[in-house]
Amino acid sequence: MNVDIGNALASVASPGVSREALDRLDEQVADAHDRIERGMANGDHGYEALNLPQRTDPDAIRSAVEPVSDAEALITIGIGGSSLGAATIVDALDSVERGSMESDGTETVFLDNVDPEWVTAHLDRLPLENTAINVVSRSGTTAETLANFLVVREAFESATIDWTERTIVTTGESGPLRDLADRHDLPSLKVPDGVPGRFSALSAVGMVAAAVCGHDLDALLEGAAAEAETLSGSLFECPAYAYGATTYALDARGAGMNAMVPYAESLETYSEWFAQLWAESLGKDDLGQTPLRALGVTDQHSQLQLYRAGPRDKVVTFVSPRETADRSIPATDVAELAYLGDASLGDLLAAEFEATEASLAAAGRPTVRVEIDRVDEYELGGLLYGMEAACVLAGELYGVNTFEQPAVEWAKKATRGLLGGVSESDSDGEFAEADAVAEKTELRIER
Amino acid sequence: MNVDIGNALASVASPGVSREALDRLDEQVADAHDRIERGMANGDHGYEALNLPQRTDPDAIRSAVEPVSDAEALITIGIGGSSLGAATIVDALDSVERGSMESDGTETVFLDNVDPEWVTAHLDRLPLENTAINVVSRSGTTAETLANFLVVREAFESATIDWTERTIVTTGESGPLRDLADRHDLPSLKVPDGVPGRFSALSAVGMVAAAVCGHDLDALLEGAAAEAETLSGSLFECPAYAYGATTYALDARGAGMNAMVPYAESLETYSEWFAQLWAESLGKDDLGQTPLRALGVTDQHSQLQLYRAGPRDKVVTFVSPRETADRSIPATDVAELAYLGDASLGDLLAAEFEATEASLAAAGRPTVRVEIDRVDEYELGGLLYGMEAACVLAGELYGVNTFEQPAVEWAKKATRGLLGGVSESDSDGEFAEADAVAEKTELRIER
Repeated sequence: MNVDIGNALASVASPGVSREALDRLDEQVADAHDRIERGMANGDHGYEALNLPQRTDPDAIRSAVEPVSDAEALITIGIGGSSLGAATIVDALDSVERGSMESDGTETVFLDNVDPEWVTAHLDRLPLENTAINVVSRSGTTAETLANFLVVREAFESATIDWTERTIVTTGESGPLRDLADRHDLPSLKVPDGVPGRFSALSAVGMVAAAVCGHDLDALLEGAAAEAETLSGSLFECPAYAYGATTYALDARGAGMNAMVPYAESLETYSEWFAQLWAESLGKDDLGQTPLRALGVTDQHSQLQLYRAGPRDKVVTFVSPRETADRSIPATDVAELAYLGDASLGDLLAAEFEATEASLAAAGRPTVRVEIDRVDEYELGGLLYGMEAACVLAGELYGVNTFEQPAVEWAKKATRGLLGGVSESDSDGEFAEADAVAEKTELRIER
Repeated sequence: MNVDIGNALASVASPGVSREALDRLDEQVADAHDRIERGMANGDHGYEALNLPQRTDPDAIRSAVEPVSDAEALITIGIGGSSLGAATIVDALDSVERGSMESDGTETVFLDNVDPEWVTAHLDRLPLENTAINVVSRSGTTAETLANFLVVREAFESATIDWTERTIVTTGESGPLRDLADRHDLPSLKVPDGVPGRFSALSAVGMVAAAVCGHDLDALLEGAAAEAETLSGSLFECPAYAYGATTYALDARGAGMNAMVPYAESLETYSEWFAQLWAESLGKDDLGQTPLRALGVTDQHSQLQLYRAGPRDKVVTFVSPRETADRSIPATDVAELAYLGDASLGDLLAAEFEATEASLAAAGRPTVRVEIDRVDEYELGGLLYGMEAACVLAGELYGVNTFEQPAVEWAKKATRGLLGGVSESDSDGEFAEADAVAEKTELRIER
C-alpha cells in the first residue's frame, strides 16, 4: 500500500500535524521500530504476528481443505478475530459482500453471532449435504463458537449427514476442539502461538475459508511479505508506519476517531476487521482512537455532513483501489444528467472519491489516503499486513499493551455465571460478576 | 419502545447525568416539545416527518406495487435516505441481512453504491425476467441513483425484458424521474413534502420495498402512531424524548460518540439507518454526537475492550427485543462447556446482553437500554418513529437546523464538475469546486 498524508498536515487541516512535529515523532518511530524488530526476532507475544508471512504454511492449509474443496457452501464458525480476517479475505475477493449471495464459487456464511432466528435461517436454507464446516477457536471453549458448533453439528446429524467428513478445525494445541479433531480424525490446523486473534488473518485462522474458495494463498502471503520489507526506522520510508504515526499524532491533537472509508464494496468487511484491530489493540488505559466504519460513495449521503461540519474530532482514512473493472453509464437525453452519459460507473466512483477528499480538505478536516493497485490477493495481503504493522507501531507510541484485551473478561465471566457455569478459581464455584447484573440501576420511561 | 436510562446516571457512570440535571433539562424539553408540536401542526419542513403515521397512505403503496407483487427479486435503487429506511424495514422483518440470501419471499437488493464490479455482480446473478425495480430519488437527479438506474434499465433491455412493466418510481412532483413515470405510465408514488430523506422511512420512500415483500404496512404505521401518542412535555413521560435528552446531556458532558448496539442480527441495518439520522441531522456547526455501529454479541469480541477501557467519550445504546424465536443448544459431554447444554441460543444471547451491560456499568461507562417487545412491524414502526422524535428533540437542544445537510453540497458540485457537468448558476458554466481537487497537498510514502 502507498499512503498519502498530505491532507493531514497542519497546513491543510485542524487538527493537523506539522512537518516539524512529524520529524520529532520520527525519532520515536525509530525507537519503536527497534522494539518491534526485537519482538519479531524473539518471537515475542504479539510481535510474532508480523512474522506470519514467513511462518504460515499455505500447503498445510490447502491440504486440510482438500476434502471439502468442491463444497457448495462453507459455514465458518468463529467470532471476533476467529472470523473477521477470514470474512475480510473472502468478501474482498468474491466481490459480493459477507453472508451474501452466491458468487461464482462457494457461498460463504460466517456464524459470528448467537441470534437464534438468524442461525436457524441459515441452517434452513443452506444445502447442508454439500456444505463444509470451518470451526475456529484458539481455546476451544469460546461460548458463542462452541454453542453454534453444537447447533450446526446437530442440524447435520438430524439431516443424517456425516459432519465428520466435512469439518475442518482450527484451534490451539489442546482443548475441547483439539480433542474433537483427534477423536474424529478431522483435518485440523493450529492457531499460531503468540498471535492474538485480531492479528491472525494471515494464518490458518484467516486463510482456511479463502482456500476453500480457491483463492491464491501464496499471493496473499507474498503481498504481506512485500509490505513487511518496507518496515524501517522512519515513517517517511514506510507506508505502514506513516499511517500509524500520523493517526496517532492526530489523536493526540484531538482526532479521537478514525473513520475507515474504502471506495469499494468488496472492502466493506475489511473496515470491520480494521475496527476490531484498532479498537481492541489500542483501546485501553483510557486511551485509544475509536474506529468508525463507513463506505464510499454510500456514506457520503449519510456521514459526510458530520465529518465535514461536526466536531473537529476525527480523521478520515480513504482506501482507494487504483484499478477496477468498469461499466459504462448509458447515455440519456435528460439535459441535467447528460454529464453522466459520458462517464462510466468507475469514473463516477473515482470523481466522488476525489471530490469528497477535497471537500474535507476545503473544510480543514484531516484525511489520509491509502492506495492499493487493485483488490486482489497480493494487494490485500499488503493492506492487511500494513494495517497490522501500523497498529503495532501506534501501540508503541501510545505505550499500551497492544496484544491483550483484559476488559472483555468481566462480561465473559458474568455470562458464564448467569448461565450456571462454575468458576474453578473461586472456592464457592460462583462467578461473582453475575451478581452485579441483578443490581442494575433502573430509570425506566415506558410507553 | 421503552427506555431505561438508569445506567446513564451520574451515580453509575462518568460521564453521567444527575437526576437534578435531568430535572433542569426537562424544562428545556418542555419548550422544545412546544416548538415540535407547533412545527407538526403547521406542517413545517422537517417537523412534518413526525406526522407521517397519519399522512402516509398504505393503500396507495400497496396499489403501486400490485403489478410486481409476485416478483422473485426487487432491486431498490436509491442512496442515503432513499435507501436506508427501506433496507432497515425489510432486513428487520426478513431476519436475514441486507443484500443477502433469499428469505421465504422476495430477495431484496439495494443498489446504494456505484461500485462497477458490485453492480455488475448483482445484475449478472439476479433473475431479471422476474425482478422488479424500485427507483427512489426526490429530485430525480441524484447522480448515483440515476447512473445506476440507467445501467439497470440497459441490462433489462439487453435481456429483452420490458422494464416498464416492472418499475415503480418514488420521486418528487417534478424532475426527470417524474417525467419518466409519466411518459411510460409507470406506477409512481410521491416523496412527501417537508420530509428529509433520512426521516422518510415511514412514507412511500421506505415502505415500497416492504410492500413488495408482503409486510404489514398498517402495523408499521400503527406502531409509529402509538409512539407519537407518547410525545409530551416531559422526558420522564416520553421514551423518545428520554432518549434524545439523555444522549444530548451525555454529549455535553463528554460522550461525543453514541454506539448503537442491537442484540439482534435483523437490526444490523437499523444501526446504519440510525447512523445517518443522527450524523446528518445533528452534525453541524461543529456540534453533533458521532454514531458508532456495532452488533451484539458479535462486537463484544471487537469493540467492547475499547468501550470499557478506552477514553470516556461514548455512550452505548443497547436495543434489546424481549422476545425472540429460540433454538436449544445440544448437550455436550465436555465438562467446561456443560453450562451451554442447559441453555438455548436465546438464553446465551440474553445473558451476554445483560453481562455486557453490567460490565460497562461496573467500569462506570454510561449506557442506555432501549427495549422493544419483539422485531415485528408494529414494534419496528415504534422504534423508527421514536428515534426520529429523539433526534428532532436533540436537534432542538443542540440548537442546530436538524433538517438540512448543507455540508454535502460541496462534494456534489465537485463531482459534477470533474465529470464535465455544467453549472447553471455560474456564468462560466463551471463548478469552481472541481478546481480544488487538482490542488491537493501531497506527502506520499510509497512502498
